[in-house]
Amino acid sequence: MTTTGVWSADKAGFEMKRKSSFSLLDATAVRPAPNVEGQDGNRMERLQQLMATYEPNDPESIQKSFARHLEYSLACTRFKFTMQDAYRAAGLVLRDRLLESLNDTNTYYREQDVKRGYYLSAEYLIGRHMQNAIANLDLEQQFKEAFEDLGMKLEELFSEEADPALGNGGLGRLAACFLDSMATLSLPCWGYGIRYSYGMFKQGIKDGRQIEEPDFWIGDGCPFEIPRPDVTYPVRFYGTVQDTYENGKNVSRWVGGEIVQAMAYDNPIPGFDTYNTNNLRLWRALPSKEFDLDAFSSAQFQDAITQRRKAEDLSAVLYPNDATYAGKELRLRQQYFFVSASLQDLLREFIKRPNYKWEDLPEKVAVQMNDTHPTIAVAEMMRLLVDVQKLEWDRAWELTRKCLNYTNHTVMPEALEKWPVEMFERMLPRHLQIIYQINGIWIQKLLQRYGDGPIIAALSIVEEGDVKKIRMGHLAIIGANKINGVAAIHTEIIKKETFPEYYKWCCDNGDPNKIVNMTNGVTPRRWIHCANPALSEIFTKYLGSQEWLTDMNKLKEMLQYKEDPKLHEEWIAMKKGCKAKLADWLKSTMDLEIDQDALIDIQSFGKQICFNQQMQQS
Amino acid sequence: MTTTGVWSADKAGFEMKRKSSFSLLDATAVRPAPNVEGQDGNRMERLQQLMATYEPNDPESIQKSFARHLEYSLACTRFKFTMQDAYRAAGLVLRDRLLESLNDTNTYYREQDVKRGYYLSAEYLIGRHMQNAIANLDLEQQFKEAFEDLGMKLEELFSEEADPALGNGGLGRLAACFLDSMATLSLPCWGYGIRYSYGMFKQGIKDGRQIEEPDFWIGDGCPFEIPRPDVTYPVRFYGTVQDTYENGKNVSRWVGGEIVQAMAYDNPIPGFDTYNTNNLRLWRALPSKEFDLDAFSSAQFQDAITQRRKAEDLSAVLYPNDATYAGKELRLRQQYFFVSASLQDLLREFIKRPNYKWEDLPEKVAVQMNDTHPTIAVAEMMRLLVDVQKLEWDRAWELTRKCLNYTNHTVMPEALEKWPVEMFERMLPRHLQIIYQINGIWIQKLLQRYGDGPIIAALSIVEEGDVKKIRMGHLAIIGANKINGVAAIHTEIIKKETFPEYYKWCCDNGDPNKIVNMTNGVTPRRWIHCANPALSEIFTKYLGSQEWLTDMNKLKEMLQYKEDPKLHEEWIAMKKGCKAKLADWLKSTMDLEIDQDALIDIQSFGKQICFNQQMQQS
Repeated sequence: MTTTGVWSADKAGFEMKRKSSFSLLDATAVRPAPNVEGQDGNRMERLQQLMATYEPNDPESIQKSFARHLEYSLACTRFKFTMQDAYRAAGLVLRDRLLESLNDTNTYYREQDVKRGYYLSAEYLIGRHMQNAIANLDLEQQFKEAFEDLGMKLEELFSEEADPALGNGGLGRLAACFLDSMATLSLPCWGYGIRYSYGMFKQGIKDGRQIEEPDFWIGDGCPFEIPRPDVTYPVRFYGTVQDTYENGKNVSRWVGGEIVQAMAYDNPIPGFDTYNTNNLRLWRALPSKEFDLDAFSSAQFQDAITQRRKAEDLSAVLYPNDATYAGKELRLRQQYFFVSASLQDLLREFIKRPNYKWEDLPEKVAVQMNDTHPTIAVAEMMRLLVDVQKLEWDRAWELTRKCLNYTNHTVMPEALEKWPVEMFERMLPRHLQIIYQINGIWIQKLLQRYGDGPIIAALSIVEEGDVKKIRMGHLAIIGANKINGVAAIHTEIIKKETFPEYYKWCCDNGDPNKIVNMTNGVTPRRWIHCANPALSEIFTKYLGSQEWLTDMNKLKEMLQYKEDPKLHEEWIAMKKGCKAKLADWLKSTMDLEIDQDALIDIQSFGKQICFNQQMQQS
Repeated sequence: MTTTGVWSADKAGFEMKRKSSFSLLDATAVRPAPNVEGQDGNRMERLQQLMATYEPNDPESIQKSFARHLEYSLACTRFKFTMQDAYRAAGLVLRDRLLESLNDTNTYYREQDVKRGYYLSAEYLIGRHMQNAIANLDLEQQFKEAFEDLGMKLEELFSEEADPALGNGGLGRLAACFLDSMATLSLPCWGYGIRYSYGMFKQGIKDGRQIEEPDFWIGDGCPFEIPRPDVTYPVRFYGTVQDTYENGKNVSRWVGGEIVQAMAYDNPIPGFDTYNTNNLRLWRALPSKEFDLDAFSSAQFQDAITQRRKAEDLSAVLYPNDATYAGKELRLRQQYFFVSASLQDLLREFIKRPNYKWEDLPEKVAVQMNDTHPTIAVAEMMRLLVDVQKLEWDRAWELTRKCLNYTNHTVMPEALEKWPVEMFERMLPRHLQIIYQINGIWIQKLLQRYGDGPIIAALSIVEEGDVKKIRMGHLAIIGANKINGVAAIHTEIIKKETFPEYYKWCCDNGDPNKIVNMTNGVTPRRWIHCANPALSEIFTKYLGSQEWLTDMNKLKEMLQYKEDPKLHEEWIAMKKGCKAKLADWLKSTMDLEIDQDALIDIQSFGKQICFNQQMQQS
């Protein structure tokens, strides 16, 4: 293979230059390709020739790609299309480029046999894709030129995109910023979650009051996502456990109940100033492929189909109302659904490595549980290792504990999730057995060290009482390698108030650093560069480069200009420009006129904006 | 605009040469484009330049197109894909070309302001798309070369396609052959039906008995269909009728109840040896966009979404089991659903004509009702013209009767659909009113001619009895311009046994030709050329051209070779080749070996094949 400015490849494999610019890729840049062996070699060789170059990124090529998607992918005629069509076609132009980068990145990860991170979160407040993808792929200038020449502004396209309703608040935004940061740092980390088709609700304001509407954000599908009909896993609910004795071992088999199919939808997460593109893999619930023939007869035909369609409701709504028992049950079902599919997926990837050995698992796999929602992972990992992979319990427990990590988000013990034992027993009977076994061994250890006393009840995974419950926070801290808070003060409270007995146990065992702090930040690409392009331009101009976008410490260098009257002038113009945009938005959205010289105090909750005009400046 | 071998265009419009070959289209062939006016002119002009040529059809271009769809549309990596992926990518290559032809055909129809036919049918047994599309687009040689060079046989791709489970038997195949024939004759006729996601059932044979499985043929979507999220119509069920007096007129308003959204999925139907490509527009049921805010509150959130999802069940199953009342109701709902969406769609197209006048409707619109399933069209057309378009009753009735036509498929009066008045009243209250009004005027006419007597009850749309019923066959013959049987003998039986009183009325009114015969045939493209390529080759070779594929009378010319030993030799070789294929299929499917010199009697029901080896030939 040849060597280009972008890629170098030889027989032994290929190397990806991690820092470079997408905008330098043209139709002559040769893509890397691993050697293909076996009987398909010839077929593959001809196909690889046909696919050996990148989609070029000059404005005219972008226009051609746009026109092709408009006519052929979206089936618009050349004479009639809407701005929504134009947005979708532009989204597909980006998707082509994201796919190249995602596929190349995955090939590279496999070749390098990297350690992989997996982030499990019930929520991702990722925000709109398009503007961020253009910025991170370094295609801002090319897209701007391409679309202005067609008489369209990029801002018009951006405003057509529905905000993905995959998250609710801070926890979801944290998860999204982590993914962006990992991709930018060229770290191999995938996110896993649920492809909710309805968000929490769409907020409207009528007569000063909130109106809630269903937020069917996914509509006709998001142009940035990649459905993966070939990546599906069965997820079982209910049923019973059969305990048998086979080959000199006690074996547990979870059978019966119902099976839902989890199908993967991939969302490329491009890094900034790197070719690296990671993946957010979201699971959608579908009827099981394994159809129960015995339960099926002509007379039950309609019922059988209705039953199958019901399975899809599992991934329908973000955070279903849990005021009722049925609502609570649906939440636990959602949690197990995405955790099981994700762990099955990452273990399949691990097993695909050449000559995999189970003792390498912690060297190759790190799983981060974001809050208690995914903490059923502790029991599911044990089930997959012990029941499916046939590992010994102690070995499986060692691997599980080394692979899993837990991020705590709440300091209030009453906000840590707990599930009634009765619900667990019915829905996840094998997991209840596993949790009891984990807890039994854990309590033995505690008794050996402390003897009987209140600390035993405080540290048990099972909460006794009128309604016996499983404490998911306790399961998480016992099953995790590291536990972290999300701010220094928060981490101290975890140690002293949320889990004081557990912290004592860590200290008594010489492991006080098991609970650590990881302060989280937000990406300056989305929150400065995209949100306020004029401010970003000032920083880049005065600092001489865009380096501040990956190293915020660089912004301190702005201090040398603090007395510079030119900067002050530009700064005020930037602020005035933003206020003018706000005034336009308020006028068009609420028919409200504001004095643009006023100081304005805005409080933003979701899409609602409350504000007071406080005092006149001039 | 320039003139090319394929198209000629000038300022005044453009002309499509109706007979030509797709395989002659290359990247230099210029596509026709109407003049674009208005403020979007500039934007459109640049885009049209980008879209001004066809996808070229030489083998290498087909390979490139295939590789692009494999990597970008299906997101397969270059190193891993299945035959199913390859089939889908090849399907998308064809879809690109079908789209060009469909869009050009529609543009041409609009420019020419043609009279349009609309075929309404509850079933279309269309068969697999791919092989037929390649043949009709005249791309057989190019596709063969392109894929053989990639190491794939076209037959392997064909066998990956699921048979669209949109029809059941002869009535559905008739509908499909009509569409193919209309496209081939370059007649502007669209089909309308339902996009069933589940067929009747998938037949299996186990221990000599039939096993029925759900046939979820649509799976991850069919690559040949074009979803049209922008083409949707509301269809109402239940509710009440409010009668008011407005502007000196009695006005009926159908309000309340529930609204389901019909979304269009287009299936291009390419003609043979023509650029003409017609459309089979199938409707999918989706939740209404008009969400009932009053019925919605946080507590009912989950319920509200479940309700919305239920709407989708409407188009789920072909011919739901009607043994139960609920099953019967679902059938009537399906019938009204697709008829209403189709009539709304064709009237919208009519109204889009420049300077449309209602008296032109019968000159521009002909609707064919295939059997009684779509005959609610008579009442729905009246509702749309009277209630929505505000036409006078008598004028609306004249237009309706001139536009609609009815194909009868059954000679058994008991097999003509009847619906309980009670069901009608609840589900379609306005339509029951309209039917009563049609019937009232009709009975008056009959009384005037015949006086009271048994002929009145026999010809009434309403069947009296313990359960009062609406006779859909009677509604159809009274509301139609022409009624046809599907074979000469069948048509005579209709006159003498099925509707003898109605035929008497026609004769008494000097209109005996209101009931006509239209014998239907099947397309020789699918049933000879695609089904038996070796036989097709013989015909073409001896007859000197493929003209027999559009004119079956040409086959008579084969008689001159009836003593030709060379033909006999080739004929026997063709038959032996077919039998060898059958033997392979029986071996691989049923592990059954047959003597290929035996005479074999095969009876085929759906996918089951029963056969007897009757006697040895050699």
